[in-house]
Amino acid sequence: MQPHPRIDPGLAEGNLQSLAGHVARHFHWQVQSGVATLTLSRPERKNPLTFQSYAELRELFGRLRHAHDVHAVVLTGAGGNFCSGGDVHEIIGPLLQLEAPELLAFTRMTGELVKAMRGCPQPIVAAVDGVCAGAGAILAMASDLRLGTARSKTAFLFNRVGLAGCDMGACAMLPRIVGQGRASELLYTGRSLGGEEGERWGFFNRLCEPDALLGAAQALAAELAAGPTFANGITKTMLHQEWAMTLDQAIEAEAQAQALCMMTGDFRRAYEAFVARQRPSFEGR
Amino acid sequence: MQPHPRIDPGLAEGNLQSLAGHVARHFHWQVQSGVATLTLSRPERKNPLTFQSYAELRELFGRLRHAHDVHAVVLTGAGGNFCSGGDVHEIIGPLLQLEAPELLAFTRMTGELVKAMRGCPQPIVAAVDGVCAGAGAILAMASDLRLGTARSKTAFLFNRVGLAGCDMGACAMLPRIVGQGRASELLYTGRSLGGEEGERWGFFNRLCEPDALLGAAQALAAELAAGPTFANGITKTMLHQEWAMTLDQAIEAEAQAQALCMMTGDFRRAYEAFVARQRPSFEGR
Amino acid sequence: MQPHPRIDPGLAEGNLQSLAGHVARHFHWQVQSGVATLTLSRPERKNPLTFQSYAELRELFGRLRHAHDVHAVVLTGAGGNFCSGGDVHEIIGPLLQLEAPELLAFTRMTGELVKAMRGCPQPIVAAVDGVCAGAGAILAMASDLRLGTARSKTAFLFNRVGLAGCDMGACAMLPRIVGQGRASELLYTGRSLGGEEGERWGFFNRLCEPDALLGAAQALAAELAAGPTFANGITKTMLHQEWAMTLDQAIEAEAQAQALCMMTGDFRRAYEAFVARQRPSFEGR
Repeated sequence: MQPHPRIDPGLAEGNLQSLAGHVARHFHWQVQSGVATLTLSRPERKNPLTFQSYAELRELFGRLRHAHDVHAVVLTGAGGNFCSGGDVHEIIGPLLQLEAPELLAFTRMTGELVKAMRGCPQPIVAAVDGVCAGAGAILAMASDLRLGTARSKTAFLFNRVGLAGCDMGACAMLPRIVGQGRASELLYTGRSLGGEEGERWGFFNRLCEPDALLGAAQALAAELAAGPTFANGITKTMLHQEWAMTLDQAIEAEAQAQALCMMTGDFRRAYEAFVARQRPSFEGR
Repeated sequence: MQPHPRIDPGLAEGNLQSLAGHVARHFHWQVQSGVATLTLSRPERKNPLTFQSYAELRELFGRLRHAHDVHAVVLTGAGGNFCSGGDVHEIIGPLLQLEAPELLAFTRMTGELVKAMRGCPQPIVAAVDGVCAGAGAILAMASDLRLGTARSKTAFLFNRVGLAGCDMGACAMLPRIVGQGRASELLYTGRSLGGEEGERWGFFNRLCEPDALLGAAQALAAELAAGPTFANGITKTMLHQEWAMTLDQAIEAEAQAQALCMMTGDFRRAYEAFVARQRPSFEGR
Repeated sequence: MQPHPRIDPGLAEGNLQSLAGHVARHFHWQVQSGVATLTLSRPERKNPLTFQSYAELRELFGRLRHAHDVHAVVLTGAGGNFCSGGDVHEIIGPLLQLEAPELLAFTRMTGELVKAMRGCPQPIVAAVDGVCAGAGAILAMASDLRLGTARSKTAFLFNRVGLAGCDMGACAMLPRIVGQGRASELLYTGRSLGGEEGERWGFFNRLCEPDALLGAAQALAAELAAGPTFANGITKTMLHQEWAMTLDQAIEAEAQAQALCMMTGDFRRAYEAFVARQRPSFEGR
């Protein structure tokens, strides 16, 4: 095995980025054993998004691309709700004052958050209770895995506020998660998707009791963080890359990506552990 | 707010097209409060398609692209059946007399109907009872939303008549609605999909009692027609546009499309209604 | 009707390939009335894949492209298990000795098997009981239809052995079969998908009792083999071709493909049988 200098060539200065002590103003951020928990925390308003919180979230997920001490992320909301989406007073009102170039700058900015969530190597587990609406529903959808509760209400509200369902990639992502017909219904009507229906449709991976939700999401994230995290990041990258490839292109792309993973110590460690009848201990490289 | 001259630049002559009084020979057409109901009406033959009805349907959906008084469409069949597909005597028999260029002209013509249905801005709600077979199943699939009944039987019959499952876009659309494995089964075997199974698979958005089906479809269409219809049309366009985009491309495309919607009066009206604690009254612009 | 010289221009020499008497070392191969049953047969190890069996499978599915006497394939495993995937001792151990170009040659070789399975015109019905793991799960997924049992366990084990979920096209195929969220869970965690869950998700077309599984798969394959097999092959080709097309492109592609099928005798035979109130007898041309 090679020695492993922890240099991340993705960082211009070669500095290692730790996000363990990240301080944010618009959400709560905690890292424990490689699992970060990001809690949208303005519970009295059901955790809305604002221009400032969008910016902070975008910057955070951008920095996660180079973080060496976060291997999975739990995304949740405080006070029994996930996220109520773009705030009516702090986002929608001001948008009405803007002209076309500024509006495009805004919609591009919100789209950048989705790109940052899909672009970081860490799997993101959304823990969704209560209200999950508008851009909040997009954040759940831009996560890799979703745990819900029976009482959760997920609504792609855009048409209720006079907008199209095409927001931050919704018309691309939702059909791939729940199918074209069900996605069309949610996007045209803006109606709420209940928890049980959401599990039945594959929007939620499973449902939990509200009290157990965060713990379950953190346990799932911890399981992923204990796995081969470099390989997990490649899984995430390829799910993204292959979105619109032909199947033959995807097979070639996977051949290259998997050959790379076969050169990692984690692959060797898993083999050696198997032969020794032990559990492998992955190191993410 | 700008004044709103009702000029549709998509019309070469600047004439406004009303489809309220549209008269068709091969189906029944009725418009009420912006909701059109198109009823295939040859119930003694379970509403088959013929060369003439294809042409009439294609022309109608083409005209809908520019209609200003139709905001949602219900597509249904008379007499307890949706549509039995291409008529054996009036279509299949004559096709056997044709040579390659004419056959391609026919299959392109039927495909043009699907393109016209996907290309008009109005959401289409299929109300499916009884037989929904062959090209009839394609018409249901080319609709945006589908309400069914427990007794409905949807069959992609093509292989039963010696043809491939690839008809009018079926191999592209059906996998996106019900998943690749289930679509493969329906297309390879031509077997009937029952109503309950269809709801479970996401082919139907929901099931209704036969007597309540048309009313439910019209109510759903009326709900859509009362919404922000310009934005609904953009939702439809983007669901189509993003079919084969990468996710990053889709996010940029949605940023542009949604910025456009943010410049509509409907977006402003929804905000003002919210602030005034009223229901918004959308105008489709 | 034209006379039908059974010349397959896909064969350089014009020789007709029969696979009826195909002898394989690493699996059992039997052809009866146009239905081939391929049984992975090393039951004491749960039918693992080895370098040799990969090569033999790849060659077989490659030859099926030109076979004139096989019209559907059942893929199964001996001894109550489907396939345990790449053998730990015979594949994973040796891979650890290889360098990058050789690893890529290996991953490309495994991908070629999937391409050959998708590239032959015969629909493949996987009969999945017991263990269906790793590359074995990919073989099930690369089949057209899947019958399972309640006790079957399908696991995309790759991350358990330190690898990414992107193996042989998994990140492209699995989301199209079960949806993006469910696919993500299976690929990130490597957990087993049970039979009932697999049916509910559309991974399995249906479940059978273990004793009835192979018979049911063969009956389904026989039904397909009795159908219009040229058209079935076109259905398979188009499901593959349209994977990443726009919907408009797919509609044009289908217009061409279906026009071709309309020139077959099978189309005429189906019509004549219908008019005569008989069951059509298809000849695959």
